[in-house]
Amino acid sequence: MRQTESRTRVRYKETDQMAIAHHANYIVWFEIGRTDLCREAGFPYREIEQRGLILVVTEIVCRYRAPYGYDDEVVIRTSIEEAASRMMRFRYELRDASGERLHATGSSSHVWVDRTTRRPVLAAADVMKAFEPWLKAVSEQA
Amino acid sequence: MRQTESRTRVRYKETDQMAIAHHANYIVWFEIGRTDLCREAGFPYREIEQRGLILVVTEIVCRYRAPYGYDDEVVIRTSIEEAASRMMRFRYELRDASGERLHATGSSSHVWVDRTTRRPVLAAADVMKAFEPWLKAVSEQA
Amino acid sequence: MRQTESRTRVRYKETDQMAIAHHANYIVWFEIGRTDLCREAGFPYREIEQRGLILVVTEIVCRYRAPYGYDDEVVIRTSIEEAASRMMRFRYELRDASGERLHATGSSSHVWVDRTTRRPVLAAADVMKAFEPWLKAVSEQA
Amino acid sequence: MRQTESRTRVRYKETDQMAIAHHANYIVWFEIGRTDLCREAGFPYREIEQRGLILVVTEIVCRYRAPYGYDDEVVIRTSIEEAASRMMRFRYELRDASGERLHATGSSSHVWVDRTTRRPVLAAADVMKAFEPWLKAVSEQA
Repeated sequence: MRQTESRTRVRYKETDQMAIAHHANYIVWFEIGRTDLCREAGFPYREIEQRGLILVVTEIVCRYRAPYGYDDEVVIRTSIEEAASRMMRFRYELRDASGERLHATGSSSHVWVDRTTRRPVLAAADVMKAFEPWLKAVSEQA
Repeated sequence: MRQTESRTRVRYKETDQMAIAHHANYIVWFEIGRTDLCREAGFPYREIEQRGLILVVTEIVCRYRAPYGYDDEVVIRTSIEEAASRMMRFRYELRDASGERLHATGSSSHVWVDRTTRRPVLAAADVMKAFEPWLKAVSEQA
Repeated sequence: MRQTESRTRVRYKETDQMAIAHHANYIVWFEIGRTDLCREAGFPYREIEQRGLILVVTEIVCRYRAPYGYDDEVVIRTSIEEAASRMMRFRYELRDASGERLHATGSSSHVWVDRTTRRPVLAAADVMKAFEPWLKAVSEQA
Repeated sequence: MRQTESRTRVRYKETDQMAIAHHANYIVWFEIGRTDLCREAGFPYREIEQRGLILVVTEIVCRYRAPYGYDDEVVIRTSIEEAASRMMRFRYELRDASGERLHATGSSSHVWVDRTTRRPVLAAADVMKAFEPWLKAVSEQA
């Protein structure tokens, strides 16, 4: 399974009065991973939008195992669990700086939507092609 | 099933460049619902923390059905799906101002943790008692 | 000086590990005040944007006097310090629930910008007219 | 004037429906710069807090010159404008990836506060010493 790795640090703003990173930030970190995967795939999300497509979120799941503290480095590993012309599902692992300790896992499901009409559409062939290396990995895995 | 109702409006800061409320905000709105349910139960979350207990999030699930636009009113209906001295699960429905249209559903699971030792603990009897009206509703429902 | 009053509560997400509301949230609360003033003026910001105008922020100043804790009620009092067809400046006071204690003061300066060309423009007469009651107050004050 | 340089990218969550980074995020980016300056000074902010000191914000000023779009790289250059045992003022420049284009400037003022009593205190000698290279720069500049 091919993974894209991103790194960020817990911002002071992202802590809460439990003195840990607030759980809603994990959803934002997932998005950083998704953005980096798209960029690595040679099809930055910015270009996907310029093409008139948006990836609307239909479901988020996040399982929290270990908290992060302020200024901790967060390693985000993003992979594709399902990719089709109608929908996509990304999978995320959040780890510590060494990559050894698992802090959280999660997924996000999306449908392709036309940016103007806001109706579901099929992703264009070259958009799907950009994700091929991850797709192949998925089928090889199966 | 007893529900606590909260209301908020989509802040400009909460929109994104799709011109809808960003999906991570739903997790924050869930928390508003949880806070209001605890206050309505006569045991504000602030007091729970002063008692040395924190409710650590272990899982978040959110299913998105319809987007919110800027300044839209968001109705949050919060109920308790499971309540035990070791863990709790809240359930959320996000609706439009009229309460008719369902925008999202979700849940959050939590464990009771000692604020100082950060280890799982059993919630004190009077904390659990505060949630009784919702608990009864759950058992009557079954 | 006419003021528009808004109320919100400090969300758990808005606290940080100092166990107070993080200072960046005050800027978001200012925006809630601005939104409510526009709505009260009979010209919701949403409509201003539908007319093809946006109010781009050019300067923010915030002076912090007293912190807010989790779940504290925040009273936002918004007034207009300067209003012209080219620019506007709003003024904010953040107070406690009783309105007696001042927690922060601040201002935001804006220019009117065409939403499509992203160039400065003059606000239309009826947009300016919506702010008249506050404008009058300003001139009477002088 | 010695500056600490930090880099971040505009997250999708940080855009708003004007399709630019929302202005409140600049305040959070300032904080990233401040955190990195403290780390570079050999006295991470995390350690400052462990010593029982917190740097409470008393004033924020931000002047916005040019917007950032989604996924744009943000270069944060942080310097110290004033440093005393009672208060500190940091200065920020936000630039594009090349460092050539200025997007915003700003400052944050702080007082040293005892974390437990929440009363103003004098910063310990070794905390102040950590900022010396920047302090020297300030006096040489004068």
